[in-house]
Amino acid sequence: MNKVRIGSVGLGRLGLQHAENIAGKMQHAQLVALCDVDKSKLHETADRLGVPHRFSSFEELIALKELDAVVLASPSGLHTKQIAAALGAGKHVFSEKPLGITVAECKEAEKAVEAHPGQVFMLGFMRRFDESYQYAHEKVLAGEIGKPVLFRSYSQDPEKFIQGAIAFAPHSGGQFLDMAVHDIDLARWFTGSEPETVYAIGDCYAHPEFAQYQDGDNVSCLMRFKNGCMVFLFAGRTAPHGYNVETEIIGTKGILRIASIPQKNLVEVLDAHGVRRECSENFLERFGSAYINEVQEFVNCIITGTTPAVSVYDGTKVSEIAYTCKASFETGTLVRF
Amino acid sequence: MNKVRIGSVGLGRLGLQHAENIAGKMQHAQLVALCDVDKSKLHETADRLGVPHRFSSFEELIALKELDAVVLASPSGLHTKQIAAALGAGKHVFSEKPLGITVAECKEAEKAVEAHPGQVFMLGFMRRFDESYQYAHEKVLAGEIGKPVLFRSYSQDPEKFIQGAIAFAPHSGGQFLDMAVHDIDLARWFTGSEPETVYAIGDCYAHPEFAQYQDGDNVSCLMRFKNGCMVFLFAGRTAPHGYNVETEIIGTKGILRIASIPQKNLVEVLDAHGVRRECSENFLERFGSAYINEVQEFVNCIITGTTPAVSVYDGTKVSEIAYTCKASFETGTLVRF
Amino acid sequence: MNKVRIGSVGLGRLGLQHAENIAGKMQHAQLVALCDVDKSKLHETADRLGVPHRFSSFEELIALKELDAVVLASPSGLHTKQIAAALGAGKHVFSEKPLGITVAECKEAEKAVEAHPGQVFMLGFMRRFDESYQYAHEKVLAGEIGKPVLFRSYSQDPEKFIQGAIAFAPHSGGQFLDMAVHDIDLARWFTGSEPETVYAIGDCYAHPEFAQYQDGDNVSCLMRFKNGCMVFLFAGRTAPHGYNVETEIIGTKGILRIASIPQKNLVEVLDAHGVRRECSENFLERFGSAYINEVQEFVNCIITGTTPAVSVYDGTKVSEIAYTCKASFETGTLVRF
Amino acid sequence: MNKVRIGSVGLGRLGLQHAENIAGKMQHAQLVALCDVDKSKLHETADRLGVPHRFSSFEELIALKELDAVVLASPSGLHTKQIAAALGAGKHVFSEKPLGITVAECKEAEKAVEAHPGQVFMLGFMRRFDESYQYAHEKVLAGEIGKPVLFRSYSQDPEKFIQGAIAFAPHSGGQFLDMAVHDIDLARWFTGSEPETVYAIGDCYAHPEFAQYQDGDNVSCLMRFKNGCMVFLFAGRTAPHGYNVETEIIGTKGILRIASIPQKNLVEVLDAHGVRRECSENFLERFGSAYINEVQEFVNCIITGTTPAVSVYDGTKVSEIAYTCKASFETGTLVRF
Repeated sequence: MNKVRIGSVGLGRLGLQHAENIAGKMQHAQLVALCDVDKSKLHETADRLGVPHRFSSFEELIALKELDAVVLASPSGLHTKQIAAALGAGKHVFSEKPLGITVAECKEAEKAVEAHPGQVFMLGFMRRFDESYQYAHEKVLAGEIGKPVLFRSYSQDPEKFIQGAIAFAPHSGGQFLDMAVHDIDLARWFTGSEPETVYAIGDCYAHPEFAQYQDGDNVSCLMRFKNGCMVFLFAGRTAPHGYNVETEIIGTKGILRIASIPQKNLVEVLDAHGVRRECSENFLERFGSAYINEVQEFVNCIITGTTPAVSVYDGTKVSEIAYTCKASFETGTLVRF
Repeated sequence: MNKVRIGSVGLGRLGLQHAENIAGKMQHAQLVALCDVDKSKLHETADRLGVPHRFSSFEELIALKELDAVVLASPSGLHTKQIAAALGAGKHVFSEKPLGITVAECKEAEKAVEAHPGQVFMLGFMRRFDESYQYAHEKVLAGEIGKPVLFRSYSQDPEKFIQGAIAFAPHSGGQFLDMAVHDIDLARWFTGSEPETVYAIGDCYAHPEFAQYQDGDNVSCLMRFKNGCMVFLFAGRTAPHGYNVETEIIGTKGILRIASIPQKNLVEVLDAHGVRRECSENFLERFGSAYINEVQEFVNCIITGTTPAVSVYDGTKVSEIAYTCKASFETGTLVRF
Repeated sequence: MNKVRIGSVGLGRLGLQHAENIAGKMQHAQLVALCDVDKSKLHETADRLGVPHRFSSFEELIALKELDAVVLASPSGLHTKQIAAALGAGKHVFSEKPLGITVAECKEAEKAVEAHPGQVFMLGFMRRFDESYQYAHEKVLAGEIGKPVLFRSYSQDPEKFIQGAIAFAPHSGGQFLDMAVHDIDLARWFTGSEPETVYAIGDCYAHPEFAQYQDGDNVSCLMRFKNGCMVFLFAGRTAPHGYNVETEIIGTKGILRIASIPQKNLVEVLDAHGVRRECSENFLERFGSAYINEVQEFVNCIITGTTPAVSVYDGTKVSEIAYTCKASFETGTLVRF
Repeated sequence: MNKVRIGSVGLGRLGLQHAENIAGKMQHAQLVALCDVDKSKLHETADRLGVPHRFSSFEELIALKELDAVVLASPSGLHTKQIAAALGAGKHVFSEKPLGITVAECKEAEKAVEAHPGQVFMLGFMRRFDESYQYAHEKVLAGEIGKPVLFRSYSQDPEKFIQGAIAFAPHSGGQFLDMAVHDIDLARWFTGSEPETVYAIGDCYAHPEFAQYQDGDNVSCLMRFKNGCMVFLFAGRTAPHGYNVETEIIGTKGILRIASIPQKNLVEVLDAHGVRRECSENFLERFGSAYINEVQEFVNCIITGTTPAVSVYDGTKVSEIAYTCKASFETGTLVRF
C-alpha cells in the first residue's frame, strides 16, 4: 500500500484539524473523503483541501471502496456504533476518545475490534503522542526516576470558555469523564499499574450551573494504585491563565514535570506585569503536533501491519476508572475498585 | 522595656540558629542566657556570642530574674512542660512546634497559656513569617485569586538526610506529625477554614525501615475543607534535588505558586546538564529569614503588648488534624472530622 | 497550479530535512526530483520518499520540464550560479543562505533575480519563520515595546561539534559570515534599520586552530544602527549546554526575550543536578518547524503570485554587514558603514 | 575590641538603611552616632534607633572619642574630603561609592588611605557582597566555567523613577559614572583583568532631557579586556518591569547567569497576564542583604585586623574606566586605555 486512503468523519474543531493534518502534514496518507452533516461546511472544506469524495451519511462513506481507513471525530455518542460499522465495512479505524459513553458501550466496541483482528484500531489519547510526554515516558521506562511515588496531573480549561462548558454540561458526563480521562490514561501509562481505591471531591466554586448534573466546575481525586503509587488528579474549568495541562511524576530517584508552565511559545515578555510567559489558549494550540503524530502512528501501523500501543482495552479501562471517580464524587465516599 | 532579655533553650541545629539570630540579627532583643545539657557546646556558644548566663538546668534558667522571655528549641517531648514552667515563672514564651506530642499535651499547653493571659505565648510556625508566603497570603486576603479551589502543598526532605530520618523515626510521630504539620498550618491559614474529611495514603517506596512504625517514606492526603476547598498535601523523605517546600493555591480568579523551584539563590548554571538552578539543601537555608522574623515578631509583641497571630489553639488544631491524617493512613479509610 | 512540483538540491543534513519536509509535511507541494552527487544517498532517499526523478547533475535537474521550482541546499559556493541557472531555466528558486560567498556574488544573484521578475525567488533566513520570532516581531511592529533601544542576539554552537567546525574553518568565512548572518538579518528585521558603525572583537579562547583563518572561536560586535538602536551580537562555538540561539529586544515600553533558555521540550528534570531543562542540540532540532514554514511560504508565494518577504537584497545587505564586522574584527578598529 | 562603635553619616535612603542595619541587624557593631544636616530627621531616627550621639556637623562627629569607625552615605561630592578627615581623626572608614567625583579626587583618597595604613578603609561595592554574586564568583574562581569569554552585565532603573533621574542628571556624571560603575567593578572582579579598548554608544530613546548633559537614557559599551575577555555593559533608565541588575558570564566550560529575572520573591502568579514573576522595585529591595553584608565585612576587618577585599585602588580604577567609557560615548570613537 503506497498511501493510506482516509475518510475523516466530523468537521468540528478537532475534526477539521484532523482533516487538514491528513491533507497536508502527514506521510503515506491521503485524504480522499470527508463526512459531515453540515453540507456547506463539508463542501467548503473539501474544496479547500482538494478532497474528491464528500458525504453527509456515514453509511455511504464507509461503503466507499477506495477507502482504507476512517478517522472518527464525530460526536461522542456516535463513536461505538461508527467503530463497529466501519470495522464491519473492512476499514481500519482511528477514533477520538471516548470509546463509548458507557462502560457497556466500551465493551461493545471491544467485541467489534476483536471480531476484526486483521484491521487496525486505535483510540486517540493524543497526549501519549506529544513529544514532551513521550520524552518523559522514555525516561521513566529507562528507570531514570526510580520507582514512581506520586503521579500528579492537572487538566484545566480557561475560564473564558465557561459558557460553552455550561452548555455542554448535560452531555459531558461530568469532569471525570470529560476531562480527567486523559490524566487517567497518563497515570496508567506512566505507572504501568491500575487503581485500587479512589476518593474524589470538588464543588461548584464559581459556576453553580454544574450542580444540577451532579458535577462541579473543579474536582479532584486521590487514588492508590496497585503498585503503591499515589495518583492525584485535578480537573477544572476556571483556569485564569489559559489551557493548562501539566503533569508531575515524583520518583524515588528523580522527578519530572511536563509543561508546568503552559507557555504559548518561547517568547518571554518583560513589562509592567513583571516577567511573564503568555499561555496556550486551547487544546489545539497545545497539542497541535500530538494530533498529527497520533494519526501518523495509525497510518504507520496500517502500512507496517503493527498494532498501535493504545488498544481498545485502554479505552474501556479509562472509562471504568472515570465512572468510579464520578461515583466517589457523587457519594462522598471512598470507593475500592 | 528597652530590650527584651531572652534565654534560649536547646542548642541543636535550630536552637543554635535562634541563639545566633537573637544575639546579632534582631532589634530590641538581647540574648542574656543559654541552656543546654551539652556543657562544652553551651560554653563555646555562649563565649562566642558573648552571653553572660549559661545553664544546663532549665529550672535554673527560668529562675533567672533578669530574664523576660524564653525561646524553646528543646526536644519536642519537653515542650509542654517547659511552656507551662516558663509561663509559671513569669516569662514570655516562644516555642518551636509542636506544642506537645499528643493532643492531650496540647490541651495542657492551652491551659497553661490561658492561666497567664498577661504573658505573650507564640508558637513557631515559621513559614507564616517567610516573605514569599506572606506576600502570597496578602494577595489571597485581598481577593486577588478569588475563592480558593485547591490548596496543594509539598514538604520534601532530601534523600541525603535519610539515615537521620530513619534513626529519628521511632520518635518522629510519622510523616504527618513530623513534616505535614507545616502544610496543615498553611492550609488553615490560607483558606481560613478547617477540614471535614481526609483520605491519606503512602508507602515505603525506597526505605522499608519506616514500615515498622506504621509510617511511609512518602505519604499524601486529600482533604475537603468546610468552605469546600480541596486540600492536597504531600510529604516525602526522598527528594532527589534538595529541600523542597512548595505550595500552590488555585483560586477562581488567579493562581499563586510559592517556591515551585527550591532555588538556592539567583544563579542559573548552563552546562552539560542543561540550564539549571541548584537547590536549597535544608530548612535553615530555605527559611533563614523566616526564623529571624518569627522571633522578631515575638519580641515586638512583648514590647507593644500585642498578641501574636499564631495562637496556642493553632498548635492544638494542627496536631489534631495531623493525628487524623495519620489515622486515615494507618487504617486505609476515609475519616471524617 | 494545483501542487508546486519541486526539485530539491543537496542531501546534506539540511537538504535531507528539506526533502523530507517537502515530501510529507507541506501543503500544495510535491517532491518530484532530487539532486546530489552521492548516488547511493540519492537513490536511497528517493526510494524512501517515493521521488520519481533523480539527478547527479544540477543542469539535468533544471532541464526537467515537469519541475516548477528548485530548493537549493547545496554547498554555499555553488549558490550564486545555481540561482542564476535555475531562474534562467524558468524555475522558481528557494535558496538557503548565503546568496553568495562574496558581496560581488550577491550582486550577481541580484541581477539574475531582477532579470526574471515573474519568478519567485526567496532566501532561507529560517528564523523569520520560527513561530516565536514571528510572535515577537508582531509585538514589536504593533508598538508593544515602544522604540527599540537594544537588540541583543546570540548564536552558539555546542562545543561537542567543534571538530566539524575546525574542519570547516577554511571555508566558513569566519564566525560573522557563517553564524552571525542570522542575527544580522534579525537585527535588520526587528529594528527596520541599517548599521552605521561596528566594533567587533573576539579570540580563540579554547581552540587556537581558528587563528590561522583570522577567526576566533567566540566573537562579538557592537553596532549603532541609523535609528539609534544599539545592536550587540555574539557568536560562539563552545556552548557547554547545547545549541543556543537567543534574542532580546529592549524597548522603551517593554522587553521581549526569545528562547533565553534553549529548552529541548516542555520537560523539567529535578534530580541531583538541581532543577533543570535539557537543551536543543542542533539547528534542526531547534528550527524544525521554521524549515517547514519557510518552504511552505515559498510554495504559497508561487501559488498566489505574491512576493516573499525576504528578498534577494536582504541577502546582499546581510553579507555586506557581515563582511564589515569581519573587517572590524581583523583590524581591531571601529568601522563606519 | 568587643563591639565596633560606629557613626553613620547621611540619612538619605541608603544612609537610613545603613543606620537601621548597624543598629539592629549586625554582629559586633554598635550604632553610637548619627550625622545629618536635617535635624528633625536626625533626631527622629536617633530616637527610634536609640542612638545617643547626634550631629549636624561632620567635623564634630569625627571629634567624638568613643567612635571607632564611620560609615559614609553622604552626597558623592563630599566623599573624598570626609574620607581624608575621618582617617585623619583616627577612625576606620567605610564609604559608599564613588571614592570621588573625579579621578583626581580618587587619587587624593588613595593618598589619605596610604597615610593611615593601620586603619581599615573599605569602599561599598555592595554587589560583591550579594550572596548570588558571591556564589557565582566562587564558581568562576574554582574554574567551573573555564576561561571567561564574555562578561555581560545590565543595570536598569525602572521607568517610574525617571523624574528623579532627570532632576539628578546635572550631578550624576552620566550613566557610566552613575550606574555602570557597579558593572565595571564586577567585570574586573570576575575576570581578574583590566580593559584595553572601549566603544560606547547610546541615546535618548525616551527622554531628551539627558542630551543637554551629553548623556543618554540608555547606553552600552563593548570592551576588550587584557586577558581577551569580551565585556558588554548596558545601563538604562527606562526598564518597564522593575529594577533589573543581571549579569552573565560565558566561559569555555560553563555559563553563569545571575538574576536574569529580577524576581521580587518566590511567588509566581498565574492570571490573565500569563505565568509571571513580579520584580524588584529598587536597589534597597534587591540588595538589602548585600548592604548588611558589606558593612559586616567592614566590622569584621576592624575586629580581626584584616584588609577588606575591596581597596581604595578599586575605586580609582573603576572611575578611570567609567570616564573612559564616557569619553568614547561623547566622541563616538573607539578609545584605547
